[in-house]
Amino acid sequence: MRHLLSIADLGRDGIEEVLAVSEAFAEVERRPIPKVPTLRGKVVATLFFEESTRTRLSFETAAKRLSSDVLSFSAASSSLKKGESLRDTVETVEAMGIDALVVRHPSAGAAHQVARWAHRARVVNAGDGWHEHPTQALLDCFTVRQVLAEQAGKEAASLGVGCFAGLRVLVVGDVRHSRVARSEVLAYTALGARVTLAAPGSLLPSSLEGWPVTVADDLDAALGEADVVSLLRLQAERGSGAFVPSLREYTAHWGLTARRADRLADHAIVTHPGPMVRGVEIASDVAELPHSVVTRQVTNGVAVRMAVLFLLLGAGGPSGPARSEPVSPEAETAGSPEPVPVDPVLPGAAIGVGGG
Amino acid sequence: MRHLLSIADLGRDGIEEVLAVSEAFAEVERRPIPKVPTLRGKVVATLFFEESTRTRLSFETAAKRLSSDVLSFSAASSSLKKGESLRDTVETVEAMGIDALVVRHPSAGAAHQVARWAHRARVVNAGDGWHEHPTQALLDCFTVRQVLAEQAGKEAASLGVGCFAGLRVLVVGDVRHSRVARSEVLAYTALGARVTLAAPGSLLPSSLEGWPVTVADDLDAALGEADVVSLLRLQAERGSGAFVPSLREYTAHWGLTARRADRLADHAIVTHPGPMVRGVEIASDVAELPHSVVTRQVTNGVAVRMAVLFLLLGAGGPSGPARSEPVSPEAETAGSPEPVPVDPVLPGAAIGVGGG
Amino acid sequence: MRHLLSIADLGRDGIEEVLAVSEAFAEVERRPIPKVPTLRGKVVATLFFEESTRTRLSFETAAKRLSSDVLSFSAASSSLKKGESLRDTVETVEAMGIDALVVRHPSAGAAHQVARWAHRARVVNAGDGWHEHPTQALLDCFTVRQVLAEQAGKEAASLGVGCFAGLRVLVVGDVRHSRVARSEVLAYTALGARVTLAAPGSLLPSSLEGWPVTVADDLDAALGEADVVSLLRLQAERGSGAFVPSLREYTAHWGLTARRADRLADHAIVTHPGPMVRGVEIASDVAELPHSVVTRQVTNGVAVRMAVLFLLLGAGGPSGPARSEPVSPEAETAGSPEPVPVDPVLPGAAIGVGGG
Repeated sequence: MRHLLSIADLGRDGIEEVLAVSEAFAEVERRPIPKVPTLRGKVVATLFFEESTRTRLSFETAAKRLSSDVLSFSAASSSLKKGESLRDTVETVEAMGIDALVVRHPSAGAAHQVARWAHRARVVNAGDGWHEHPTQALLDCFTVRQVLAEQAGKEAASLGVGCFAGLRVLVVGDVRHSRVARSEVLAYTALGARVTLAAPGSLLPSSLEGWPVTVADDLDAALGEADVVSLLRLQAERGSGAFVPSLREYTAHWGLTARRADRLADHAIVTHPGPMVRGVEIASDVAELPHSVVTRQVTNGVAVRMAVLFLLLGAGGPSGPARSEPVSPEAETAGSPEPVPVDPVLPGAAIGVGGG
Repeated sequence: MRHLLSIADLGRDGIEEVLAVSEAFAEVERRPIPKVPTLRGKVVATLFFEESTRTRLSFETAAKRLSSDVLSFSAASSSLKKGESLRDTVETVEAMGIDALVVRHPSAGAAHQVARWAHRARVVNAGDGWHEHPTQALLDCFTVRQVLAEQAGKEAASLGVGCFAGLRVLVVGDVRHSRVARSEVLAYTALGARVTLAAPGSLLPSSLEGWPVTVADDLDAALGEADVVSLLRLQAERGSGAFVPSLREYTAHWGLTARRADRLADHAIVTHPGPMVRGVEIASDVAELPHSVVTRQVTNGVAVRMAVLFLLLGAGGPSGPARSEPVSPEAETAGSPEPVPVDPVLPGAAIGVGGG
Repeated sequence: MRHLLSIADLGRDGIEEVLAVSEAFAEVERRPIPKVPTLRGKVVATLFFEESTRTRLSFETAAKRLSSDVLSFSAASSSLKKGESLRDTVETVEAMGIDALVVRHPSAGAAHQVARWAHRARVVNAGDGWHEHPTQALLDCFTVRQVLAEQAGKEAASLGVGCFAGLRVLVVGDVRHSRVARSEVLAYTALGARVTLAAPGSLLPSSLEGWPVTVADDLDAALGEADVVSLLRLQAERGSGAFVPSLREYTAHWGLTARRADRLADHAIVTHPGPMVRGVEIASDVAELPHSVVTRQVTNGVAVRMAVLFLLLGAGGPSGPARSEPVSPEAETAGSPEPVPVDPVLPGAAIGVGGG
């Protein structure tokens, strides 16, 4: 894996690998000192041409937990005013020896363009226009598998990706303007799930040709049959306001109200990419139900992004074999006579438990 | 101590403990390499919904000197535009495993609200509207004790908090809109000082019921009797402009002009939370007099914030016994055969002098 | 060297020293883990009162590669709204124990003023109005020497600064508003090069008295005779628009068009401080020619800024002898029984190759 631009780059095996490595980093997140020296000396730059608190902080937290250095770049502080093109920005950042660029941009395809200009740095698409947001789909899959494992009383890693076969996933809301929806459809279907879309006609893409999905006629009926419900945010800032008559009407027809939530199967899992607009796409009470895994998604997002950065930068990268001892005063000051390298790429491998 | 939201949370004993730990970190600040690995692997996020260079930099410097990772979040880069509530922001940041949230917000009570939503993270109030700014009051007390100790030819730590008993503190200026004044009144009176307020009626709180203070009739007379003079900033951006006829008139009646500074006792200490508006609440020449300890307050602010972060995150936290060897190339690369843990919580304990 | 405010502070010997130390850090940049613990525990603050992505990121990358902590301060997040003067800002940052201030400011002389207020911290001028931008000139010289060495089949370090004697440097464009031009003229002439300016009269300084330069009558002829061509950016945001009739006309008369580039000697080196405005001061195709070393300049900028920070903070500073082992999990966890200090100040000394 050279870049992560689209879920299509990964395929079923690639997704399985990311999920496996993410399990190892989720274990790191649960440690008292949730930090590993894996990417020490690497520099990760976040280039956000569109604001996003949660995605930027998630990537920066992930990068710091891997001990890489982090540089933040936002459009507001850019040289674009000086007539610098995106290309010059990318070439500049790359020439400084930055190892990874995490790019968010309002234009579909921007991350691909950045990747064409980056000769050395690895590129992660953190959302490009209405196109894709692959790490969001990966953390959704990771979280769904985690809950399925708990429901089955098993270890998540032991499930592989077989647990997604035949899973009924219902994606509800503003599919048209949602990069999350595009990445989810690609990811869930690659893993064998059956995806249904539920949205007003004006918020469906103008053509669904080639999308391996069905469209629900009746949201209420579809909700009762879903194993996973992926609620999308109403993308008011990307123009979906013009596509719905009013928020109140949208909620009445397409929101997950308390009444609709009653139709959910007991085991149904409700995901949301955040930030939730309570009272619009989801009722405030419903957001608190056990079905909702929004908080877990945020937590897992850090582990999944650690895995992505590790797979791009740490495995077979220029710094030699990756290592994963915990960073602790003990380890760093007391010395460790016989460091035992472990390979965090092996699915489910323990990462640095007990100093090696 | 779970959070630091108000001086009232600390009481006399809590303040004494913070001052004691701050002494230890002030010693760290004077070292060639003023950094300790105490909070390695912890993540501190600064959430500033209101700008403040000095407070944000002070907390971030403190956090980095403790070797924690720091994430900056400001309102300008927030998701609030997307309809995300403060609650979702807090829950998101907490779900990412952030260990401490340093919160500044224009609304009184915001930090308390954040603390109610934070199940795991510790919250520090870095200023909430007109309500409180506890670390400012703590660094004021720390600085005053430091000067009193020098005047007495003693070690500050040896004074405990007894040196505040009966101390005459005069708080001058825009008390009504000042969170610093509220926190100072609570802190100084908890330590046994006698606090007097001097302000035009329009800049006093509408009621002083329950405030253990007196109000000065005559600023000039009160200045001559004060051991400590706390000047407040005229909070133009919080509306105090409407409460004074003109800056010139304010300065004439309530500013610390050169003529008024002549009335100060030789030993009097003048504090200011900064940024000073020279020529308004303090004459430029007066700001340079030996009475003024503004620069020391800034220096001590870092030590006091290190102490607060340490007390919230380092003592008995999830990372096991805190350690405090200096971070140095020698210690980290050469190995240290017999690390000797010390307990920085013990009042006055030396923190990692000489590598243990 | 206490501060780096102007190339004039350095003189020929100072420039030679910076170039020598930069060679050592350029070697660090080429390592798998391009990070050294030299400035561990130091805090570098970037104070940018004017936006600049590339300069800020370059300094921050340099500081992080030296293991110092970095704090970012930009005018947008400043307390200036609260009536705080530049002086108070500087005194505050200094009182917090910040070790170095990297200052960019729209006013000429601002960095000198900051240095007068800084009693302890070292100051680096990262661009002050139309005045100077010394690290840019240093990285230009470093890059030019690097190419000259390659053309001669020698090591750059072995050339010293003798390779600049008699070198013909042509500076083209908006000299009047260019701090880069001022610093370049000082640097190149201090090293014995012969500098010629080529610009429309309206973009030359109002007086060239005391400038050790000649002015070209004929750009096309001058291009053919130049060993180095330094293209300047048209500083539209500093008002040069009013000095040229139109961009199209500027390009026709003063841009490095493909036709003009044909006149360049084979060995000629074209530098540009970036960001390039392709199609204005340089044709897009010309920017891709082997003459152009823009990407190398960016890469070398990090090494040169590491050298400047090291010379200001690391050599004989308060932290004792500087050390330069590579930061790596191996070095930090496995222990290093016999650390061998090396002196990165010695021209051309190897910095920490192989762990010591």
